Amino acid sequence: MAKGKVCLAYSGGLDTSCILRWLMEEGYEVVCFLANVGQEEDWAAVEAKALKIGAVKMVIEDLQKEFVEDLCFRAVQCNAIYEGRYLLGTSLARPVIARAQMKVAIQEGCDFVSHGCTGKGNDQVRFELAFLTIQPSIKIIAPWRDPKFFDRFQGRNDLLDYAEKTGLPVTSTKAKPWSMDANLAHISYEAGVLEDPDHTPDDDMWLMTDDPVKAPNEPEDVNVYFEKGVPTKVKTLKDGKEYTDSVELFTLLNKIGKLHGIGRVDIVENRFIGLKSRGCYESPAMTVLRWAHLDLEGLVMDAQVRSLRDQFVTHKWSEFLYNGMYFSPEREFVENSLVFAQKRVNGMVRLRLYKGNVFVLGRSSETEKLYSEEEASMDSLDNFSPEDTTGFIGICSIRLKKYGLQKIEEGGLAGSK
Amino acid sequence: MAKGKVCLAYSGGLDTSCILRWLMEEGYEVVCFLANVGQEEDWAAVEAKALKIGAVKMVIEDLQKEFVEDLCFRAVQCNAIYEGRYLLGTSLARPVIARAQMKVAIQEGCDFVSHGCTGKGNDQVRFELAFLTIQPSIKIIAPWRDPKFFDRFQGRNDLLDYAEKTGLPVTSTKAKPWSMDANLAHISYEAGVLEDPDHTPDDDMWLMTDDPVKAPNEPEDVNVYFEKGVPTKVKTLKDGKEYTDSVELFTLLNKIGKLHGIGRVDIVENRFIGLKSRGCYESPAMTVLRWAHLDLEGLVMDAQVRSLRDQFVTHKWSEFLYNGMYFSPEREFVENSLVFAQKRVNGMVRLRLYKGNVFVLGRSSETEKLYSEEEASMDSLDNFSPEDTTGFIGICSIRLKKYGLQKIEEGGLAGSK
Amino acid sequence: MAKGKVCLAYSGGLDTSCILRWLMEEGYEVVCFLANVGQEEDWAAVEAKALKIGAVKMVIEDLQKEFVEDLCFRAVQCNAIYEGRYLLGTSLARPVIARAQMKVAIQEGCDFVSHGCTGKGNDQVRFELAFLTIQPSIKIIAPWRDPKFFDRFQGRNDLLDYAEKTGLPVTSTKAKPWSMDANLAHISYEAGVLEDPDHTPDDDMWLMTDDPVKAPNEPEDVNVYFEKGVPTKVKTLKDGKEYTDSVELFTLLNKIGKLHGIGRVDIVENRFIGLKSRGCYESPAMTVLRWAHLDLEGLVMDAQVRSLRDQFVTHKWSEFLYNGMYFSPEREFVENSLVFAQKRVNGMVRLRLYKGNVFVLGRSSETEKLYSEEEASMDSLDNFSPEDTTGFIGICSIRLKKYGLQKIEEGGLAGSK
Amino acid sequence: MAKGKVCLAYSGGLDTSCILRWLMEEGYEVVCFLANVGQEEDWAAVEAKALKIGAVKMVIEDLQKEFVEDLCFRAVQCNAIYEGRYLLGTSLARPVIARAQMKVAIQEGCDFVSHGCTGKGNDQVRFELAFLTIQPSIKIIAPWRDPKFFDRFQGRNDLLDYAEKTGLPVTSTKAKPWSMDANLAHISYEAGVLEDPDHTPDDDMWLMTDDPVKAPNEPEDVNVYFEKGVPTKVKTLKDGKEYTDSVELFTLLNKIGKLHGIGRVDIVENRFIGLKSRGCYESPAMTVLRWAHLDLEGLVMDAQVRSLRDQFVTHKWSEFLYNGMYFSPEREFVENSLVFAQKRVNGMVRLRLYKGNVFVLGRSSETEKLYSEEEASMDSLDNFSPEDTTGFIGICSIRLKKYGLQKIEEGGLAGSK
Repeated sequence: MAKGKVCLAYSGGLDTSCILRWLMEEGYEVVCFLANVGQEEDWAAVEAKALKIGAVKMVIEDLQKEFVEDLCFRAVQCNAIYEGRYLLGTSLARPVIARAQMKVAIQEGCDFVSHGCTGKGNDQVRFELAFLTIQPSIKIIAPWRDPKFFDRFQGRNDLLDYAEKTGLPVTSTKAKPWSMDANLAHISYEAGVLEDPDHTPDDDMWLMTDDPVKAPNEPEDVNVYFEKGVPTKVKTLKDGKEYTDSVELFTLLNKIGKLHGIGRVDIVENRFIGLKSRGCYESPAMTVLRWAHLDLEGLVMDAQVRSLRDQFVTHKWSEFLYNGMYFSPEREFVENSLVFAQKRVNGMVRLRLYKGNVFVLGRSSETEKLYSEEEASMDSLDNFSPEDTTGFIGICSIRLKKYGLQKIEEGGLAGSK
Repeated sequence: MAKGKVCLAYSGGLDTSCILRWLMEEGYEVVCFLANVGQEEDWAAVEAKALKIGAVKMVIEDLQKEFVEDLCFRAVQCNAIYEGRYLLGTSLARPVIARAQMKVAIQEGCDFVSHGCTGKGNDQVRFELAFLTIQPSIKIIAPWRDPKFFDRFQGRNDLLDYAEKTGLPVTSTKAKPWSMDANLAHISYEAGVLEDPDHTPDDDMWLMTDDPVKAPNEPEDVNVYFEKGVPTKVKTLKDGKEYTDSVELFTLLNKIGKLHGIGRVDIVENRFIGLKSRGCYESPAMTVLRWAHLDLEGLVMDAQVRSLRDQFVTHKWSEFLYNGMYFSPEREFVENSLVFAQKRVNGMVRLRLYKGNVFVLGRSSETEKLYSEEEASMDSLDNFSPEDTTGFIGICSIRLKKYGLQKIEEGGLAGSK
Repeated sequence: MAKGKVCLAYSGGLDTSCILRWLMEEGYEVVCFLANVGQEEDWAAVEAKALKIGAVKMVIEDLQKEFVEDLCFRAVQCNAIYEGRYLLGTSLARPVIARAQMKVAIQEGCDFVSHGCTGKGNDQVRFELAFLTIQPSIKIIAPWRDPKFFDRFQGRNDLLDYAEKTGLPVTSTKAKPWSMDANLAHISYEAGVLEDPDHTPDDDMWLMTDDPVKAPNEPEDVNVYFEKGVPTKVKTLKDGKEYTDSVELFTLLNKIGKLHGIGRVDIVENRFIGLKSRGCYESPAMTVLRWAHLDLEGLVMDAQVRSLRDQFVTHKWSEFLYNGMYFSPEREFVENSLVFAQKRVNGMVRLRLYKGNVFVLGRSSETEKLYSEEEASMDSLDNFSPEDTTGFIGICSIRLKKYGLQKIEEGGLAGSK
Repeated sequence: MAKGKVCLAYSGGLDTSCILRWLMEEGYEVVCFLANVGQEEDWAAVEAKALKIGAVKMVIEDLQKEFVEDLCFRAVQCNAIYEGRYLLGTSLARPVIARAQMKVAIQEGCDFVSHGCTGKGNDQVRFELAFLTIQPSIKIIAPWRDPKFFDRFQGRNDLLDYAEKTGLPVTSTKAKPWSMDANLAHISYEAGVLEDPDHTPDDDMWLMTDDPVKAPNEPEDVNVYFEKGVPTKVKTLKDGKEYTDSVELFTLLNKIGKLHGIGRVDIVENRFIGLKSRGCYESPAMTVLRWAHLDLEGLVMDAQVRSLRDQFVTHKWSEFLYNGMYFSPEREFVENSLVFAQKRVNGMVRLRLYKGNVFVLGRSSETEKLYSEEEASMDSLDNFSPEDTTGFIGICSIRLKKYGLQKIEEGGLAGSK
C-alpha cells in the first residue's frame, strides 16, 4: 500500500522525471501537475511522459489569463520592481501556479505536494509558503533538500544514470550552461556561467528579445490605454489594430517588444535567504506596460498619494512578491491600498519602441483633470495669485531660518560645505 | 540715495536685463551674479551687458567642480530620482548657485537678493528657501510675484518694449517656443508648446543628446569605477583612456552620452506648489552614472541596508532636493545616512552605450566580498545545509498558516480569488 | 446692498462677536454657525446674542454623533497620536465642524466663510483647507490675517472698547491667562502663561480631569469591547451596566476618566506652519479607548500588518489630521488601509483605572485565533519542530556572517565597540 | 579526549546546571559564562556550583556600565519601543551578554557556544545570530532544540531526576508559575499561568515595582538632564542630590521608580518567529528616561527630522533589537542616523512621579533655541506676517481644490461621508 498521494510539480525535464520515479520508489502515488503560464511546451508529450513513468494522473492547466490579469496587471498597477530593476517575472508566476497545484492536490486527495526546486533558491520558499498558507495541513516533499535524495543524486550525471537505469524517456540533450525559467512575463537566466557576475551573457542566450543592435531601424509606435491602472487596450499605429483581450494584448506586446529588443536586464540581486545571485531577465511586455503606466500616473495621480504609494506600496508589494509572501496578510494589506490608489489612473500613453528603448511621445486622459494646461502655464496668472507663493515661502522658511541660525551659531553658514 | 543694495541673479537674457534696469529705477544699487554650472555662455558678453545696463558689479563664478562633486555625485550615490524618472538636474544646481550668490550678497553688503524666477515654478522656492536659510535676515525681491512688476510687464512684448525704450542691449531674437535651463547635469525644457502633455517635442528641441535613431550603429563601451559610491574613474574602451578628474569624467560622459542619445526623459511631474507640469529633460552623464552605480550596489551592498536606503533615503533625498529643501535639517539628516550606507560601494561596472541604451556588461569589486560565486552556485552545497531552508520555511509559515486558517474559516482558501 | 453673504463660525465669545459686528460694518450679511461637538455651552444664549448683534441667522448643529463615530473612533482604530503624545482632540473636531459649516454656507447661499482663528495657529489652516476643498469656489475672510482688522484690534482691550462702543452684549469677564478649546474628545490649553514651556500649569486649569493626586483611592474596572477596531460596548464592573451607544459610551468614559484623572498631557509640539508651541491637553475617553485598542491589537492582529500599519498609517494619518489634511486624497488613501487592517480587531479588554493610570487586566476574543495558548507555551512542542528554528537561524545568519567577516577584516569583531 | 570546548551561558539554575552536566557527558569540556547585567545573584555561589559540577572554568563579568551606556541610553535616545508598549529590556541586554560570552569563547579557545534558551522564544535567535555574526566560524549547541536532549528531558521533573541522579547541587525549590528574566533595565515575566492572556497577574509577581495602589501618597520630583539625547544627570528635588554616573543614575531611577510603581506593562506581543506570546514587564528607570527624553525632543528637535526619525529610525531600531538583529548592518545603519539626529537634544526636564505616573512639569534648554516664546505667542506679530499664512494656505489648497472638484464631479462634496 502506498505511503500516500503526492501532487508533484512536473515539467517533463530530467530533474522532475527523476523525482517522479524516485517518489514512486519511495512508495508514493504521484499525481503530476503542470501549469501553462505561457511557456513554450509540447503539452501532450509532457503528459505522455508523466504517465509512462508512472504518474497516476497528469493535470495540465492553462493559467495564462489569471496570470496576466491577477498578477502581471497588478504589478503594472504597482509599477512593481525589485531592487530598482527586476520586474519580478518568476515571482509573479509562482502564486498562480501554487494556487492551481494546491487545488489539484486537494481535489485529488493528496497528502503531500512536491517540487523540483533547489535548496538555495527563492522558488522553494515561494512555492512552499504558498502551499502551507493555502492548506496549512499539507505536507511537503522537497527532494533537493532531502539528504536521501541529494546525497544520491549529486549532479546531472547521477540523474542521467538513474534515468537510463530506470528506463525514463529522457532525451539526452546537452544541458545549457545556465538555467532558465520562462513564462508570459519573462524568461530568466541564472546559474552556470552566469555565476561570474562579470561574465557578459552570450548573444544567443536571450530568447524572448532580439538583439537591440539587430532590431529594426524603423521605430514602431503603439498606444496603451488604461482603466483604473489596468491595461485595457493596445493600439498598433502602423496598422491601426486594437487589442483588448488581456492575454492577447500582453502577447502582442511581447511580440513587438521582442522585435525591438525591449526589456533586457542583467543584475546581481539579493535572494530572500540572504545570498546574492546574478540573474538575467527579459520582459518585453512588462517593460512596455510598466513604462506606460508610470507615465500616465504623472498626468492623473495626486502627488501626495503617489509619493506615499511609491514609498510604501510599490516598495513593499515588490518585496513581498519576491520573497514569496503573496499569500500573506501583508500582501493583501498593501494590495488593498494599491487598488484604491488606482481609481483615477485612466487614460492613454503614446509610445515609440526602438532598439531597446521605450520612448513616451505623449499622454492624455479624457476623464482626469488634475493636469491643466492653463494652470501649469508660466504665462497665465488666471486663478493664481503669485503673492500666495511669497506667503508659502515665508511660512516654509520659519523652521528653516531657525536651522540657518543654528548653523551660523555653530560658526558657519547653512550653505558652507 | 539708494534704497539699498541688491544681489541679482543675472543671466544676460531679456527678463533679468529688464529686472536689473527696473531695480535701478526702483532706487536700488545692483550687484549682478552669474554662476557657471556648465552651461554654454559668452561670459564676457554677459558681464559687459550687466555693467552697461548699470550694475555696480558683475560677479561670475565657476561652480562646476562643487556642482559635480557636492551635488551630482551625491545624487549618484543616492540613485536619486523624482517620481520614478526625473534625475533632478535643475534641483541639483540650485543649491550651489544659491550658496554662491548668497556669499556674494554678504561680501558685497547687500540687504536684498533678487532673481527672475516666475511665480508658479519650483525654482523661486528653491532659491528663496536657500537664501533665507543661509542668511535668515536677507530680504528678497521677486519681481515676477510683485504686482508693481508683473502688472506692468504682462508678456514678452512689454519686456521688449521696455528694453527698447530704456536702451537695453537686447538682441531681438525670436523666442523659442519653450523655455530651457542648462547645466552640466542636464538641459530641461518646459512651457510653451510643451504645456500640451500630448505634444511630442520636435526633434530639434533636444540639444544635449543626439537623436537615438541617428546615433552610431556601433555601440561604445566604458568602464566606470566607484569608491564609496562616488565615481572616481571612467575608462573608455575604444582608446583605453582613463579620466579621474570629477569634472572631466562627468564632461566626458556627457559627450559620449550625447553621441549615443542617452538620457532623454519626457514626463508630467508634480511641482512642489501643487501644480502638475510637463517637463522634458536630457541628462547623459547622470543617466550613465546612476545606472552604473545602481548596478554596483547589487554586487556590494547589504540587502537590508539597501532596502531601507531605497525606501527612505533615496525617496526622501530626491523629494527634498526637488522641493528646494537642500539647506534643511531633514536633507542633512538623510544625507548622513546616505553617505554611511556607501562605505562599501567600491568596484567597477562595464557598460555598453548604444542608441539610447545603457547596457551593463558586467561588474566586479576587488575589495568587496558579499557576493560569492561558490555560495550563490546552485550546484554547490559547501557551507550550506539545505535542511536549514526547511526550518526557515517552517518558521516563516507559522504566522502564514494562521492567516490561511482564517481564510478557510471565512469560507475560502487563501489562494482563492 | 450687501457685498455678499458670509457664514461665520460664531462662538458667542468676545472675538467672534466683534468679528460679526465688523463684518456687518464692512457691508456683509452674516449667517452665524456654531457646532455642538460636546463643549459646554448655553446654546440659546449664543443664538440670542448673534441675532442681537445682527446676524441674519444663527445655525447651531449637534455634531456629537458624527464627531465620535467618524473621527474619534477612527482615531482609536488608528491608535492616532501626534509626536508620540498628543491625541489630536482639536484636530479631530475641525473636519466635522468645517464640513457642517460649509454645508450651511452652501444652503444659505453664502459667497464667503469666516472664522476667528489667529494667524499663527493650526486651526486657520485646518478650517480653510477644509473649506476650499469642500467648495473650491468659496472665498474666505480671515480677520486676524487682514491688516484692516488686526491693525485696528491689536489686543483684547481694543476688542472690549469696540464691543462697548458698538453695544455688543459682551460679559466683561476677566480673561483666563490661557486659551482653551473644548469638545467631547478633549480640552486643550495654550497661550498666555503656558507659553513658558517650563511653567507648570496651575492645578485649577484642568477642567476635564480631576487631579490624579485627589482621585479616588479605589481603582475602578471597565471592560471595553471592539468590533473591527471600533468601540461597541463599555461595561462598568462596579454596577454591571453596559453602554452601547457611541456618544453615550464615549461620554461615560469621559466621566469615569475625569474621576480618575486620566489623560493629561503637557507637551511642546510642532505646528504645521513651522513654529513650536506648548499645549496642555486632557482626553479621558480617548486615552482609555486608545489604550484598550492598542492592547487588543496585540492579541488579534497579524504582526507584519501591524508593523506596516504602525509605521505608515498611524504615523501619516495622525500627521494629516494635525496638519488639516483631513479632506485630502492622502488621508482618504491611508484611511482606506486603516479600515482594511481592522477587520479582525474583535474582542474585549479589561481595564483598571486608577489615579491617572489605565492598567490592562486582561484581554480576550471570541472570534480571533491568532493567539494560541498551546502554541505560545514554552512547555509544549505539539505542532512545533524545534529543529526548524535551527534552520531559521541558519538562513538568517547567512547574510549576517558576511557582515561579521567584513568587520573582522576591518580589524575588529562585529561586537566590538 | 574531549570533542571540543564549549562556552556555556550558565545561570546556576536547574536548566543550565543540567545542560552543563549533559555537555560533559556528551564529551565536551565546558567553560561557563555568566554576565552581570544588574540582576540580583549570589555570584560566588554560582561560580562554586559550576566548578563543582565540572566546568573547567567559570567566568563572571560585570557588564552593567556598557549595558546602560551602549544599549539602554541608546534606546532612550531612540525612544525605542516595540509594538507601542514594550521597552525592550531583554532585547537590550542580549547584545552585551552575547558579545562578552563570545569574547570569552574566543579567549578560551572554544569551538562551541551553548545556552539554555528554549526552542520557541526570541532569545535563542538573539544569542545565536549575535554569536554567528561576531564569529562566523563558531558552532552552536542548543540543547533545547536537540532531540537528544529534549526527548530525554521532557519537563522539569526529568531535570530534577537527572540532577538528583548525577549529584547536581540543585536546591529543590518550588518553581514559580511563570518564568522571569531580570536585568538593570527590567524584569520580564512570561509563560506558565501568564499564557492565558486574560489572566491578571498576581500582585506578588511584580518585583521591580511596588504596587501603584500602595505607592506613597506624596509625589516625588526629579529633574533629568540630557546631552545629545543621553541622560547625563538626575537631580532629586526632595534632597537636592545630583547623580551623574551612568549606572548610578540609572539605578537611582530604578529605585525611585520602584517606590512609585512606575513602568508596568502587560501585553500580547509578536515574537520574531511568528508566534504571539504574552509578556509582563516592569522597567522603572527606562520608563522615566524615555518619557523625559520624548518630552525634551519636543522642545529642541526639528519637526521634520523628528517625524522622519519617528517613522523610520525609532520603528526600525526597536524592531531590529527585538528580532535579535543588533549585530547587523541594518542596525548600524539606523543607529548612525539616530545619533546624528540627537546632536541638539540638550536640556532638562522636570518630572513628577506619582503612583504609576510620570508627569512632566516643565522643560528647558540653555543652548537650544528652536522654541521661542515670542514667536509662539498668539499675541505677538513681531517677525511674523499673518498674510504669509494666507499665501501658504492658498498654495496648499491648489492640489486639494482639484481633489474637491473630483469629489463634486463624482456626485458629492469632499466633505460628505
